[in-house]
Amino acid sequence: MVTRGDGRIWNELRPITIQRRFTTASAGSVLISAGRSIVLCTANVEPQVPAWLADQGSGWLTAEYSMLPGSTTPRKQRERSRVEGRTAEIQRLIGRSLRGVVDLQGLGPRTITIDCDVLQADGGTRTLSITGGFIALVDALRTIQAELPNPERLPLHDSVAAVSVAQWGEDLVLDPNQQEDNEAAVDFNVIMTGSGKFVEIQGTAEHAPFDRLLLERILDLAAQGIAELTRLQREALGEDWPWAS
Amino acid sequence: MVTRGDGRIWNELRPITIQRRFTTASAGSVLISAGRSIVLCTANVEPQVPAWLADQGSGWLTAEYSMLPGSTTPRKQRERSRVEGRTAEIQRLIGRSLRGVVDLQGLGPRTITIDCDVLQADGGTRTLSITGGFIALVDALRTIQAELPNPERLPLHDSVAAVSVAQWGEDLVLDPNQQEDNEAAVDFNVIMTGSGKFVEIQGTAEHAPFDRLLLERILDLAAQGIAELTRLQREALGEDWPWAS
Amino acid sequence: MVTRGDGRIWNELRPITIQRRFTTASAGSVLISAGRSIVLCTANVEPQVPAWLADQGSGWLTAEYSMLPGSTTPRKQRERSRVEGRTAEIQRLIGRSLRGVVDLQGLGPRTITIDCDVLQADGGTRTLSITGGFIALVDALRTIQAELPNPERLPLHDSVAAVSVAQWGEDLVLDPNQQEDNEAAVDFNVIMTGSGKFVEIQGTAEHAPFDRLLLERILDLAAQGIAELTRLQREALGEDWPWAS
Amino acid sequence: MVTRGDGRIWNELRPITIQRRFTTASAGSVLISAGRSIVLCTANVEPQVPAWLADQGSGWLTAEYSMLPGSTTPRKQRERSRVEGRTAEIQRLIGRSLRGVVDLQGLGPRTITIDCDVLQADGGTRTLSITGGFIALVDALRTIQAELPNPERLPLHDSVAAVSVAQWGEDLVLDPNQQEDNEAAVDFNVIMTGSGKFVEIQGTAEHAPFDRLLLERILDLAAQGIAELTRLQREALGEDWPWAS
Amino acid sequence: MVTRGDGRIWNELRPITIQRRFTTASAGSVLISAGRSIVLCTANVEPQVPAWLADQGSGWLTAEYSMLPGSTTPRKQRERSRVEGRTAEIQRLIGRSLRGVVDLQGLGPRTITIDCDVLQADGGTRTLSITGGFIALVDALRTIQAELPNPERLPLHDSVAAVSVAQWGEDLVLDPNQQEDNEAAVDFNVIMTGSGKFVEIQGTAEHAPFDRLLLERILDLAAQGIAELTRLQREALGEDWPWAS
Amino acid sequence: MVTRGDGRIWNELRPITIQRRFTTASAGSVLISAGRSIVLCTANVEPQVPAWLADQGSGWLTAEYSMLPGSTTPRKQRERSRVEGRTAEIQRLIGRSLRGVVDLQGLGPRTITIDCDVLQADGGTRTLSITGGFIALVDALRTIQAELPNPERLPLHDSVAAVSVAQWGEDLVLDPNQQEDNEAAVDFNVIMTGSGKFVEIQGTAEHAPFDRLLLERILDLAAQGIAELTRLQREALGEDWPWAS
Repeated sequence: MVTRGDGRIWNELRPITIQRRFTTASAGSVLISAGRSIVLCTANVEPQVPAWLADQGSGWLTAEYSMLPGSTTPRKQRERSRVEGRTAEIQRLIGRSLRGVVDLQGLGPRTITIDCDVLQADGGTRTLSITGGFIALVDALRTIQAELPNPERLPLHDSVAAVSVAQWGEDLVLDPNQQEDNEAAVDFNVIMTGSGKFVEIQGTAEHAPFDRLLLERILDLAAQGIAELTRLQREALGEDWPWAS
Repeated sequence: MVTRGDGRIWNELRPITIQRRFTTASAGSVLISAGRSIVLCTANVEPQVPAWLADQGSGWLTAEYSMLPGSTTPRKQRERSRVEGRTAEIQRLIGRSLRGVVDLQGLGPRTITIDCDVLQADGGTRTLSITGGFIALVDALRTIQAELPNPERLPLHDSVAAVSVAQWGEDLVLDPNQQEDNEAAVDFNVIMTGSGKFVEIQGTAEHAPFDRLLLERILDLAAQGIAELTRLQREALGEDWPWAS
Repeated sequence: MVTRGDGRIWNELRPITIQRRFTTASAGSVLISAGRSIVLCTANVEPQVPAWLADQGSGWLTAEYSMLPGSTTPRKQRERSRVEGRTAEIQRLIGRSLRGVVDLQGLGPRTITIDCDVLQADGGTRTLSITGGFIALVDALRTIQAELPNPERLPLHDSVAAVSVAQWGEDLVLDPNQQEDNEAAVDFNVIMTGSGKFVEIQGTAEHAPFDRLLLERILDLAAQGIAELTRLQREALGEDWPWAS
Repeated sequence: MVTRGDGRIWNELRPITIQRRFTTASAGSVLISAGRSIVLCTANVEPQVPAWLADQGSGWLTAEYSMLPGSTTPRKQRERSRVEGRTAEIQRLIGRSLRGVVDLQGLGPRTITIDCDVLQADGGTRTLSITGGFIALVDALRTIQAELPNPERLPLHDSVAAVSVAQWGEDLVLDPNQQEDNEAAVDFNVIMTGSGKFVEIQGTAEHAPFDRLLLERILDLAAQGIAELTRLQREALGEDWPWAS
Repeated sequence: MVTRGDGRIWNELRPITIQRRFTTASAGSVLISAGRSIVLCTANVEPQVPAWLADQGSGWLTAEYSMLPGSTTPRKQRERSRVEGRTAEIQRLIGRSLRGVVDLQGLGPRTITIDCDVLQADGGTRTLSITGGFIALVDALRTIQAELPNPERLPLHDSVAAVSVAQWGEDLVLDPNQQEDNEAAVDFNVIMTGSGKFVEIQGTAEHAPFDRLLLERILDLAAQGIAELTRLQREALGEDWPWAS
Repeated sequence: MVTRGDGRIWNELRPITIQRRFTTASAGSVLISAGRSIVLCTANVEPQVPAWLADQGSGWLTAEYSMLPGSTTPRKQRERSRVEGRTAEIQRLIGRSLRGVVDLQGLGPRTITIDCDVLQADGGTRTLSITGGFIALVDALRTIQAELPNPERLPLHDSVAAVSVAQWGEDLVLDPNQQEDNEAAVDFNVIMTGSGKFVEIQGTAEHAPFDRLLLERILDLAAQGIAELTRLQREALGEDWPWAS
């Protein structure tokens, strides 16, 4: 069996810590870490919607992603004159994934922005952003719950979390860190709901195409990771978890 | 069974036309169309590599994607001051997918740029770009074959093609056009090799999460489409197809 | 007498091909080629005018010009963060030249945008854009004719076409290709109406100032080329040519 | 005597917390807070200098400042296409202030970048950035101490800290929060060394010009605040404080 | 006593020339020079205010600063794609300093823009911009005086001027030129009203921190310079000086 | 005969003033005015050439054009994030026109930059920039004459000047001001050498196409204006005029 550099076994997540209300200027603010990766997810609500949604009663959710310069070694340059392709791709993924469980009609004419700022990057920051972003989203919805079209229930269909799986040599590993990621032959990001359905799947053969059998094993491993992350989200939210336990 | 707006049955590709050497200024130049979608794929070779590959002997392949203003109704604005997130995401996908079958060491210290310019857009332009881009890539490699480190064989592991599958109401449809895409509940882009392996899978639940069973049916349908596209690529390339027939 | 590299005599245009309705997403769409130069001209109509024309009843016509990366050898970089001076100069010329024959009042409060995208560049792409752009403009006007303030006649005073003349050694040559252009001592772009009047003249001494006599001979040669181009425009438009034949 | 909104007396700093090594990807990483204001200061060392310093043996120190979108209510837009004037002004101030105590020759040919990312903003973030940035700088210098031209001592002439003083109605207040700042008639940022000398003074009459007497009282109050901040810096650095205690 | 390169004694301003109405397209237009430094200050009035001031009846004053390419040796590049930090800092200072003496309510809903374009730079251009900008401002206010809320008096509390003081070796020098500025250990910009109050103070230790005693001497010297500059402003404005003489 | 708003007769230039060495930081510096239009032309020499000219021994000349914000009523916004098409077109014209009389080989490996900054704009600023730019160019060449490959003679084939001619109603007018320009039916910019040859001709029908006869009359009138401008250039340069008188 694979021996991982940080001592984990193949199907083990990194230790996750979740700190809600890390700051108070935003309606939702969650500091989430997985091993050395640390992301601050804030959720803010604004009483407008994009022009193409005007006068339809529906709300919107969007996300932005950024890495602080000190998050990597060596230091990463700020994106101050243009947004890199990688950043654009990641923040679009975060937005789609969270919208996948939100009832936009139930939001009313509001935009929620989920900002995911990476304080330290050691792999898996896009999936961590989704997992933490969901908690910040719930906190923001709780903050404005009384003003929602239906204050009885949050406009959420399900919870959502995300995890990576990599093929590392002959083995699969759950939640790879940066070094494992760099060396992976196949890299999957899997975004699933708390009830076990898929919101998004992105799988890439970095070095060699993969077959259907490997795909099946990857999805099995991802599903196990998501179940564990969902449990951690529910624990962190406690009474604010939107569904009866 | 589903009745599609353009008369196709559910597992039918749009009519594909492929015109090699549409222009002659580029080493490879392919005009490919699927129904009303038309993409000009050109492949150019430059004798440098990006700075981070310097002095490693390896080559590189990158891709750019753009929609002409007249490709849509209404007219689409040019991206002249910044590149949109969608564009960045698509051109990164095209580049990764083609690199997935290229032997970069076998290229020698060269960069191949695949430009995919959409002359008309009616859905599926990113997958069409990959399918057509592969043909332009082969043409470019044939052009420089004598200068390659090993002129005996092209530095390609396999062929690659791409297709979309959408869940449309209760049905699956292969190669959806724009209108089907807009109304789809689930949208998959599947990139596979000629030998039937996966290079990349991207699946998104636009409206409702999907389950494992649907995923399996989608991959089956995609595999059938890829097989047909691979046959068309081989026909178009004729004697230039890199593998014995 | 001068022997030209491509076998033409001095006062001979390159073979011109014109394909109307190359795409259908735009109201007008013309693929025009002169020898190896190929330009896709599309015309789109939008029901707004620039702010400075608001509430004056008048319409507007503007143009954009761009070269695809694969249009030249070696590959040309995309203008994605800024527009080059040459591009700005050319697209302003195209817009002015076409506006020179349009009755803007007769358009009503609409903006027509002529997009000229160069698929392959071998000299003369700016003049080819004007000649082809006029045909796309007529097609677009025919498309919206019923909605015009006066549906009885198109809001056009005249037709317009453009051609280059170069001094090449001691000789003048009509419609120079890129190589002839590079070696020219004097380069003129002449834009004229079908009835033989000037809309714009731009003449530049690339290497040595020129005298009045040369100017007169250049204008004579240009007028001959314009007459031929006008005939080709009329043939291409057939019944849609705005004036009785 | 003035009653401040948060219960402080006029010459009282907000409670300061300092957490060294908040992240480990940077040579220095300090999370510093004053009341609700929170700044993450990281210090990174790169083995190059700007072009204008090349081959002079000297090092350089520069700073960047940025506010996270979630740091304010309402959410602040990211500076992704251009840097605002306020940001440019602040990061230049931070850089000059820290350079004021650094022996650039003693750094050797290296650039230290101090990144100050505001996680939450409630006034005084530029001064907090300087105070925390100095600690991150010391940590970074300790990290590379063995490689310095003179490993016996850090290339620092003195410590540096910064504080604001505002005239609020008739009263002076030390370390104003955002609300006090908004209502201030006069606003001073004072940057001083641990030994009580000035590195930079910036005083602005927001509403009414001020006289010399007020200036003198402001500088007295600032000096008291700096003395307290210097004590906190020394405590936080403990054995790593560069000077004998 | 210090011998200055240009023959001045330590407390001597450079010769100042002031030419009002240098151009007539702007409501105020002043060409001001100090030695070799030359700045064209124009003041223009527009009948709008920034969005955040809308419907409050108040006016606004803003400033822009720029150096012409030919103003320095060697030639300075134009800021055509982004504004440098130094430029942003200077134009914010000019705007704040002039606003410090303007009664914005008394302006009515107008924006005055002070443009300071440096035709030649030999040090002190930011302070010269403020001193000249005040004269252009008065001229602009005279131009629109009849339309002001209160046409009886200009909406100005006081006059304003600015000067630099540098520590040069052991000595202080008033109004340093570029060479003196480059070699200065301490550099102060002092902005004061005609009645001797401070609007802004910016002092920077370029090489070594400075003590309180030096600060006091610097402010004394600055006050003397400001008094002289105020006299020159009053002379230049003659009958248009806003206060009884 | 036409009565012009400013009292001139049809073939009369505006009064021209030329002030050499207006600033001293640039090798050439000319303040030139025609009526209310005022342009500062500076010429600077740098010891490099663009990359595409490297190692060919040849020099280069380029030009930049800009309008100060205060040059027009109402105030014109600065081009700080992008260069407008009109600006690009004008500065390319200025550069081409001056290069038309320069012996680039005779410059040696240097770049001369002609900056034309419009202090006040009342029509004709592009032609004034060429006429004044030539004088600044001669001054710059005199400054570096001793270092030129051949110090015996300036690397100039001829002098160059520029003027506009407009059709205003039924009449032609020389050197139109802004108001005449706005109302013109046809507008020509003619750039000619001192010996009466053409360097560039740009003629545009703003409202109605023009015939060959009008063109001939325009060129006659332009030639007369150029002769007068050449005389003024020679007078201004006096002994520095490059050719025997």
